Amino acid sequence: MCRWIAYRGESVPLESYVTKPVHSLVSQSVHALESTAAFNGDGFGLGWYGDQPEPGLYKELRPAWSDENLQHLCRHLRSHMFFAHVRAATGTSVSRPNCHPFAYGKWMFMHNGLVGNWDLLRRDIERMIPDELYGSRGGTTDSEALFLAAMGQGLTGAERREDPVTAVGRMAELVTELVHGKGEGAPFRFTAALADGRDLYAFRYSANDSSNSLYYRTLGNTVVVASEPLDQDRGSWIGVPDNTALVARWGEPLEIQPFLQPSETIEKIPAAR
Amino acid sequence: MCRWIAYRGESVPLESYVTKPVHSLVSQSVHALESTAAFNGDGFGLGWYGDQPEPGLYKELRPAWSDENLQHLCRHLRSHMFFAHVRAATGTSVSRPNCHPFAYGKWMFMHNGLVGNWDLLRRDIERMIPDELYGSRGGTTDSEALFLAAMGQGLTGAERREDPVTAVGRMAELVTELVHGKGEGAPFRFTAALADGRDLYAFRYSANDSSNSLYYRTLGNTVVVASEPLDQDRGSWIGVPDNTALVARWGEPLEIQPFLQPSETIEKIPAAR
Amino acid sequence: MCRWIAYRGESVPLESYVTKPVHSLVSQSVHALESTAAFNGDGFGLGWYGDQPEPGLYKELRPAWSDENLQHLCRHLRSHMFFAHVRAATGTSVSRPNCHPFAYGKWMFMHNGLVGNWDLLRRDIERMIPDELYGSRGGTTDSEALFLAAMGQGLTGAERREDPVTAVGRMAELVTELVHGKGEGAPFRFTAALADGRDLYAFRYSANDSSNSLYYRTLGNTVVVASEPLDQDRGSWIGVPDNTALVARWGEPLEIQPFLQPSETIEKIPAAR
Amino acid sequence: MCRWIAYRGESVPLESYVTKPVHSLVSQSVHALESTAAFNGDGFGLGWYGDQPEPGLYKELRPAWSDENLQHLCRHLRSHMFFAHVRAATGTSVSRPNCHPFAYGKWMFMHNGLVGNWDLLRRDIERMIPDELYGSRGGTTDSEALFLAAMGQGLTGAERREDPVTAVGRMAELVTELVHGKGEGAPFRFTAALADGRDLYAFRYSANDSSNSLYYRTLGNTVVVASEPLDQDRGSWIGVPDNTALVARWGEPLEIQPFLQPSETIEKIPAAR
Repeated sequence: MCRWIAYRGESVPLESYVTKPVHSLVSQSVHALESTAAFNGDGFGLGWYGDQPEPGLYKELRPAWSDENLQHLCRHLRSHMFFAHVRAATGTSVSRPNCHPFAYGKWMFMHNGLVGNWDLLRRDIERMIPDELYGSRGGTTDSEALFLAAMGQGLTGAERREDPVTAVGRMAELVTELVHGKGEGAPFRFTAALADGRDLYAFRYSANDSSNSLYYRTLGNTVVVASEPLDQDRGSWIGVPDNTALVARWGEPLEIQPFLQPSETIEKIPAAR
Repeated sequence: MCRWIAYRGESVPLESYVTKPVHSLVSQSVHALESTAAFNGDGFGLGWYGDQPEPGLYKELRPAWSDENLQHLCRHLRSHMFFAHVRAATGTSVSRPNCHPFAYGKWMFMHNGLVGNWDLLRRDIERMIPDELYGSRGGTTDSEALFLAAMGQGLTGAERREDPVTAVGRMAELVTELVHGKGEGAPFRFTAALADGRDLYAFRYSANDSSNSLYYRTLGNTVVVASEPLDQDRGSWIGVPDNTALVARWGEPLEIQPFLQPSETIEKIPAAR
Repeated sequence: MCRWIAYRGESVPLESYVTKPVHSLVSQSVHALESTAAFNGDGFGLGWYGDQPEPGLYKELRPAWSDENLQHLCRHLRSHMFFAHVRAATGTSVSRPNCHPFAYGKWMFMHNGLVGNWDLLRRDIERMIPDELYGSRGGTTDSEALFLAAMGQGLTGAERREDPVTAVGRMAELVTELVHGKGEGAPFRFTAALADGRDLYAFRYSANDSSNSLYYRTLGNTVVVASEPLDQDRGSWIGVPDNTALVARWGEPLEIQPFLQPSETIEKIPAAR
Repeated sequence: MCRWIAYRGESVPLESYVTKPVHSLVSQSVHALESTAAFNGDGFGLGWYGDQPEPGLYKELRPAWSDENLQHLCRHLRSHMFFAHVRAATGTSVSRPNCHPFAYGKWMFMHNGLVGNWDLLRRDIERMIPDELYGSRGGTTDSEALFLAAMGQGLTGAERREDPVTAVGRMAELVTELVHGKGEGAPFRFTAALADGRDLYAFRYSANDSSNSLYYRTLGNTVVVASEPLDQDRGSWIGVPDNTALVARWGEPLEIQPFLQPSETIEKIPAAR
């Protein structure tokens, strides 16, 4: 089980979230509190938006805790929107192409969770990736396949522009059918973040299992979403409910939307504080 | 374009071929003579048979020339059958899962060449891999896909046992059709080695292009097959002809067989000296 | 704090100790029981003796738990004497030259412990390394410096041949004086193994601190020494007492000898069971 | 023999010099024109100044040509002063701590050249490093030792502030004496860059040998210094003469100063165009 954080707001040095806080992402790589994996030492990655339309990426297969490059980059890079991810592999190899975040054009994605019975379902999920995106599949993880499959639900191409929550939802619906069907009830846990340089989306969902933890904190225009609170002021962190999407569009207030909810549960969605 | 060597014979330390000769494989990683790639610095791999039915593998994404582990292993490992490969990437990432040799059960494979227009043809070639083998696809290279596709032509499974030259030939035939058709004449170069711990096979073939160089040398029961002669006694090295397979079954004399030859050219096959 | 095992006995595949047991060294890299470091993910190394007078080495800066090469090597390498080590760095960088074991000629060494206040004492300890050995200092750890300093106490060179326990003891005595003096009471923990391909020595010692754990098990000619018992049959493992050296010369029964003991404590040394 | 570039001027994306030009530093890693090493595949490094007083560093032991992180960083990092270096090792191991540039506080340094007979002279040169700097020696190269030895000639500490050309000159003088004396005429080649975030210095010097190539180009406030011209407009590149230092202080015109010149040759120094 991995750990990640996503940031949108004033431009800040990445170290403010990735390396410096008491329970920073790098300290979570050594000792996570709300994870079945005690530590996350199977590679890591950073992604950030700057002057270019597409994000910059830094991925490494070493653990985050001993990488001097990561310390340097987090101290010297500033960004208004960035992702950071530490990995605990669930079966696929520890290699850079399997590290998060993944990017395609302006889009960036990272994931904590899994598609159970991956060897059985891999082909079917890869089949959901459109031909024109398949060449950019660089690794073998379920996470990257889920991302490219979601891209294929209308997030790329000139002719149409889908709402990302709808597109990701359609992908998750198809995968849910797969795990219920051919997967014979394999778990599908999907706690993920998606961004395009302006807007940030996060998802907390699962099928046949309980969802992985997810929290957020807002202050003015700043939104931080993380697998676990980054500091001991836990009161300032709000849990993202199961089966919801967090939507933080640039310059707009944060919203929590239903995400693949059974129709009878929609009324349970709490409003964001 | 990569460089490789394959050995079958008396048990010897790997260093006798991989690191020590004047034009050893490691020296070819720095300066190849018969290659369009002046050097081969995109990772490397060793595979060797010992006490176990399946081969041992050592792969590394660093260049071979500076890896102290490789020096140690070649000095301390002995084997009667081993492969060594230095890679010059043709588009896919430099990662361990993309390094040769590849193994499945008792089988081991390595390749020098390419499927042109890989991004276009990748899906079709991956489709040739049987479901039960697809889980072992760990990288994104054309080479690994060709190997698993060949395995699917009857080399695994209890019920049937194909002749490896026939199975590999069937795979190469299907790929040739693909590059002629959907690939619109993309080149397909296939200079490869396959082994099962007892028998060694090598192939030199191409479609829409000229084949990559391949040589062999025999002495008693020992057969060495290599992209380039390993020493300056070039007279002792015999070129493997285009469109042939070299077959070196344990305890049997080496044979050169036709491999996907247009019927009118079969009489051109030279006998092994 | 690191974890290690040393083996001397019948030639066996390394996997029998390094990767297979319930609490194998690789499982200790993920979850050590008797260590202040919960896990040991800062690189690892193997060293083994075979046909050559000097040992083979395999070192890697990735964690042991995700390295496929390590799995392959442990399954395919057999040896009558080998070391394996997983590292938890105590301040120096995670790089291959800082991974254990270290070798010089026929000698091989690994260490769990530290010289406290290393930045202050490093120069003085490096000064203990003879000129002719200094060129082989490849990293910056205290451990490697202690090894080369011990070599300089009479373990190399043609003219004289020291008893290894005496040579290592003289080095440890000099370092003890340093930590008491210039080091102002910095801790010095030295739980180490030394071998030459025939004889195996292990040391458990500390100054200004308590010693790191060390256990051994014997069966016939086989001796295994390890930071922690490798299986749940803890009754078969005997603790190595503080301030002693374990001596396992080829073909001779194992001995426990006093090592830098204050004279009044020598009578406390327990006999090996 | 390594290749490097140093930049001082308007803030630009690093890609403008490191990855994009026809003969960019990364293309020099694959094919250098004025170097005895045909390629430079033994690791690389970036160093850049931004908001912080000390530089950011990114080092990697893989070759520059296949590192996706480097492509990303060069595209997304902007700086008014940066170094980039590709390494061809001259005997010491390929590890991150041995990659250039090296940093201490605000200072950054990189080097192309060598101290011949390094194993013999290493101790003497390391002895030139002051105690308070010795803890920051992270690798084993001659280059890093030369840097820290130069720092010790008055570039750190509160009480005094040396002119960098004088300090580096004093270090080079001491090393020259060493190679003439104990080194018995070993070559000493020193083509190096030093910066503090404001001012840039470069040196071209050798003893017992000919100096490695060095060029510069100025345009307005921008100064680029490089082992080889980065594009085919060779006319715009000026060779840095032997035994001179290039001084590019912020907001001041570039100067070429004598550096350790035999007194009778000083008049030969050409003026900068």
